Amino acid sequence: MTSSEPRDGRVRKADALATLATPAIDAWVSSASAAGEAHLVPLSLAWVDERVVLAVSGTSLTARNLTASGRARLAVGPTRDVVMIDAVLDRAIGVDDDEALGDAYAAQADWDPRGAVGYLFLVLRPVRVQAWREADEITGRTIMRDGRWSV
Amino acid sequence: MTSSEPRDGRVRKADALATLATPAIDAWVSSASAAGEAHLVPLSLAWVDERVVLAVSGTSLTARNLTASGRARLAVGPTRDVVMIDAVLDRAIGVDDDEALGDAYAAQADWDPRGAVGYLFLVLRPVRVQAWREADEITGRTIMRDGRWSV
Repeated sequence: MTSSEPRDGRVRKADALATLATPAIDAWVSSASAAGEAHLVPLSLAWVDERVVLAVSGTSLTARNLTASGRARLAVGPTRDVVMIDAVLDRAIGVDDDEALGDAYAAQADWDPRGAVGYLFLVLRPVRVQAWREADEITGRTIMRDGRWSV
Repeated sequence: MTSSEPRDGRVRKADALATLATPAIDAWVSSASAAGEAHLVPLSLAWVDERVVLAVSGTSLTARNLTASGRARLAVGPTRDVVMIDAVLDRAIGVDDDEALGDAYAAQADWDPRGAVGYLFLVLRPVRVQAWREADEITGRTIMRDGRWSV
């Protein structure tokens, strides 16, 4: 392993945006029920117009938690080069009901959910984004606050 | 990418145990507050006597959520070769208060939390374990139920 200096905020933002735009990348998506039970699953992600787009069955725990609470916390990247996103649900829409969104999702993900009965796109708006690799990057990890890039 | 046949349950269990015993491996740890807010962080893991051991600050959201709810859901491994663990909290103990546990944690993790003020070991007992790589392994993914290996 090579060690390196902590990245500054601009580099972290550029790296985070590159990670989010990676073809066939997955996110760890955590959500919670109203009863306070955490759920966690890996899901393919598309990064479209500064939104995270997921495709899930409407009956999945993730869909149910997110449409009820409106919130999720996501991680993208390996555990020692993470992009953490706290996000709110902008909208949930059937996978066949927004052609441009479907095209954008299928262009980045390595599967195309269109035609899958009962599947939804969940469009999530980041409100906080953090990026760090190791302990020396904990300071300065928050690169978006309250929905605005701070770098 | 090479494709392969879906693994049978015994192979998944052996692979999962090997993953959990990997030196310097991290888990994605999701927990939830009583108010239904999900939290997610990467944490170094040790696998000791069929328990997941984490080391966290007692003031962290993860410690607070877990000691209140007694539950977490963890993921170990990359998104396309996952071990998912639903676990309950067996005990939380100061990092300097159980020498054998501290030795075991430090032997697997690549840091030693002993001496860190206010840090706890969270000892988690798996109740359900799932292991899958891609969509063709969704069937048969549950290899532990109700705290017992089913394979």
